[in-house]
Amino acid sequence: MVSDLMNLILLEADEIGDDGRVSLSGVRGNHLRAVLKVALGQQVRVGVVDGPFGTGTVQCIADDIVNLRCTFEPRNLVEAAGEPPGIAKPRVDLLLALPRPKVMRRLWAQLAAMGVGRIILTNAERVERNYFDAHVLTPEVYRPLLIEGLQQARDTALPAVSLHRRFKVLIEDDLDVLCPAGCRLAADPAGSMSVAAAVRPAERILLAIGPEGGWNTFEIALLEAHNFQSVSMGSRTLRTDTACVALLALVHDALRSFA
Amino acid sequence: MVSDLMNLILLEADEIGDDGRVSLSGVRGNHLRAVLKVALGQQVRVGVVDGPFGTGTVQCIADDIVNLRCTFEPRNLVEAAGEPPGIAKPRVDLLLALPRPKVMRRLWAQLAAMGVGRIILTNAERVERNYFDAHVLTPEVYRPLLIEGLQQARDTALPAVSLHRRFKVLIEDDLDVLCPAGCRLAADPAGSMSVAAAVRPAERILLAIGPEGGWNTFEIALLEAHNFQSVSMGSRTLRTDTACVALLALVHDALRSFA
Repeated sequence: MVSDLMNLILLEADEIGDDGRVSLSGVRGNHLRAVLKVALGQQVRVGVVDGPFGTGTVQCIADDIVNLRCTFEPRNLVEAAGEPPGIAKPRVDLLLALPRPKVMRRLWAQLAAMGVGRIILTNAERVERNYFDAHVLTPEVYRPLLIEGLQQARDTALPAVSLHRRFKVLIEDDLDVLCPAGCRLAADPAGSMSVAAAVRPAERILLAIGPEGGWNTFEIALLEAHNFQSVSMGSRTLRTDTACVALLALVHDALRSFA
Repeated sequence: MVSDLMNLILLEADEIGDDGRVSLSGVRGNHLRAVLKVALGQQVRVGVVDGPFGTGTVQCIADDIVNLRCTFEPRNLVEAAGEPPGIAKPRVDLLLALPRPKVMRRLWAQLAAMGVGRIILTNAERVERNYFDAHVLTPEVYRPLLIEGLQQARDTALPAVSLHRRFKVLIEDDLDVLCPAGCRLAADPAGSMSVAAAVRPAERILLAIGPEGGWNTFEIALLEAHNFQSVSMGSRTLRTDTACVALLALVHDALRSFA
């Protein structure tokens, strides 16, 4: 059921010529040639970042390049609050206290693969200040990792990423703009409610996951004051990356159960 | 809610003297000195691999060593089929088509942290033969990684590990001995049933997760013939390690809902 291969070739909109032609070198070109072993005329599944899915027909195979001619399927656009129309995003947003750079590096592709609309990274008392200076928080590093996760999971919806150095300002001022409506959950080992019981149908979910060592009392109180419901997934303490995958699995499963 | 620290100091039974004294150097000694910054007389949470939890009182702190005197809490033992009495294991066993060594290395600690009783690694058509020769399958490599996961999750129950190079022999002959009763689930994107709907109360769960690229038709049929129910968690294709964490989260959550 699982594949580490590129299950979808993702294209950037500005790579595609007016006639649907695209020329792939690097990792994607190599994947087409060496892994998929494509032949002339063969069709492969493609997608455009934050855009439609489509089909690419192999036009030319050279040593370091594969040319495709692509056609795309119409896709309904939706309008989110305060944003231009775009494709539907996964219905879960993640508010995450910034983990150590090594853990964050491992997380990007996994978050994109699990499906999140927004990744909101925040400070907290137990987040070390120098984590915010990490190379892994630059778009040049994380965007390719997010795209790797999307290609794995066959999705085109790139998570929006934002960094917030002031937790209080984020929760009090910015969050209602970023995530105006929906059901807010905060993972907390002391919580008594399960994720399944807390998720309400037909809404976006905002899931908050604390730092290694947990939120402090002030942070928990601020989250509660801003309508976050504490949820628990048992007594085992998990590493941040493991906890993110586990909790996103539970939230997506709860949303599917309403579908 | 999450910590990458050692949330429990795990001891091997043969490290503990008759009077409960244990002398810790290396990673654990360093953790006590440099991270927990323990003082003489301070008490720390300890556990014995496959044994009880307890409390260690700091007796001596030297440059490269910390001595503890430990007392342990009685713990009920249970008897599993064909095995000597032992502590209760997590109620989920994992049957996993062996992933690439790099992925398997990442998985050990996460599996122990999520909680599994048994890790049954198997061959399949889409498993490359040389994966079985990987260094990461030797107990010298994986045991410390499993213990790292247990220390993270505050558990003492070490997963049992077995390697099976012949899928058919495993499913037809060995599996009923390894996992004699319980509810058997096979993750399959084509499955229509959710994990929550398939898990039955008061039983052990055996969860099968296929290779990158999926089980072949013969393998799926053999699993079905041996009472595996196909379950799905949606249409996104996940990397083996992400899929394992996500599916174990769903199974544990379903078991908790019966508690």
